[in-house]
Amino acid sequence: VASDQAKVYNSASWMNDLPIGVFDSGIGGLTVLKELIKRFPRESFIYLGDTARVPYGTRDKETIKRFSIELVDFLLKQKVKALVVACNTMSSVALSEIKNRSTVPVIDVISPTVKLAAKNARDKIGIIGTRATINSRAYEKAFQELGVKIEARECPLFVPLIEEGVIDSKATEIIAKTYLDGLKVDYLVLGCTHYPLLSKVIQKVIGKKVRLIDSAHPTADALRNLLSSSDLSADSNIKPSYKFYVTDDTKKTEEVARLFFDNKLPAKLQKVTV
Amino acid sequence: VASDQAKVYNSASWMNDLPIGVFDSGIGGLTVLKELIKRFPRESFIYLGDTARVPYGTRDKETIKRFSIELVDFLLKQKVKALVVACNTMSSVALSEIKNRSTVPVIDVISPTVKLAAKNARDKIGIIGTRATINSRAYEKAFQELGVKIEARECPLFVPLIEEGVIDSKATEIIAKTYLDGLKVDYLVLGCTHYPLLSKVIQKVIGKKVRLIDSAHPTADALRNLLSSSDLSADSNIKPSYKFYVTDDTKKTEEVARLFFDNKLPAKLQKVTV
Repeated sequence: VASDQAKVYNSASWMNDLPIGVFDSGIGGLTVLKELIKRFPRESFIYLGDTARVPYGTRDKETIKRFSIELVDFLLKQKVKALVVACNTMSSVALSEIKNRSTVPVIDVISPTVKLAAKNARDKIGIIGTRATINSRAYEKAFQELGVKIEARECPLFVPLIEEGVIDSKATEIIAKTYLDGLKVDYLVLGCTHYPLLSKVIQKVIGKKVRLIDSAHPTADALRNLLSSSDLSADSNIKPSYKFYVTDDTKKTEEVARLFFDNKLPAKLQKVTV
Repeated sequence: VASDQAKVYNSASWMNDLPIGVFDSGIGGLTVLKELIKRFPRESFIYLGDTARVPYGTRDKETIKRFSIELVDFLLKQKVKALVVACNTMSSVALSEIKNRSTVPVIDVISPTVKLAAKNARDKIGIIGTRATINSRAYEKAFQELGVKIEARECPLFVPLIEEGVIDSKATEIIAKTYLDGLKVDYLVLGCTHYPLLSKVIQKVIGKKVRLIDSAHPTADALRNLLSSSDLSADSNIKPSYKFYVTDDTKKTEEVARLFFDNKLPAKLQKVTV
């Protein structure tokens, strides 16, 4: 028995130094990764963005599930100790498929965000996201379980606008106005990892009093809980490593990725096929 | 020898009743297909739109080539007598790969359009397209061979705006103004099969005097030449059939496809995997 326990311990310790896999349909998940790198300076991360097939949010759920599984398979082959689904669309539509496929623990962006936002249950909560996220009603169901009603709106052009860097534009403001027209809330959940880059425009259109909630902080909290409860934290003095994989690399992707990281990319983008 | 000739003739005659494969990254190619159906009422068509991975125009050329070959393979399996690349991005970036892969004649949208537009060589010619189309310089090179200089502009957000049906919007006009700012031409080639749906906005922004040229007519002319020179025209009295395949089908795709066909879709969209 003693030797068995020792074995288990060794194996766990070896796992602790593995990176955490973070994935998204494109580079929106970098808003989450940035927070994770800040909060977990000793952890290594592998990021995978499916930039060859972004956006997912306007596609059918069967297609999104198929693509998600391919991303999971790729990251599992890289040997990761946990997966963070840094994409609201995949978290909404494909989470059970991702969890079934994965051999390591999975964190999504929706449940932690809902738990945080529901603390303000007496206030009116709104949620914006891609078409697939909103149509899935994943946020609505999660809030409903906590007895909270929400108002949801789809904003399908926000992702292409952000990926093109069309952010401080009157055009983006007009489109935001169409999407948010008549939405009266106290809190607005940014239900897409791209949207924090549009927070200025969104805040201007929805009004200063509305508090915006993004997924990065609650997701980092959820990861902290997982690492400590599963005893998976990096416990060595090894310097953390970062790998950024994309399925398509264009100058524009690199440019916008830099924008996400205030111009300081922790790793070069590398193209892979999933 | 006589029997061999007869064999060849029979085989050709059998081929004549095969459909023509028309393909695009999404549903933009339907603007071309619509013209082809009108011009060739006895021909059968199979359309394939890669809506699960649209847009292609913002992606890297290696990715576009890989996707293009997959579409060609799918259509060849369906048994077609010719292929029409109803997509400027693929015509710009992957045409030689498509031609190498194909066992049937291939028509693209660029060479016929350039041939038509170059007739106005003494006038100033502009061209707008996706980022991949413009970066490939395919139009520039084709015009250069005819001794014509052009001015080219990329309009990466036009495809997402059109796919979302955001057409008669002030936002689209503002984005068009940014893209076309300072462009002084007599003729403007719409170097993307989606763009004819934005012709009103483009005309307004660029000015009434500029003549817009789209690919549908010259591509139909090129197909007519091919069918007659290769003796491939449908020569039977069989009623033509239409099949519309997409790699992802959402309500929105169906909705926008209807928009392309003035609300009368000749066939239902069917989802396939390539």
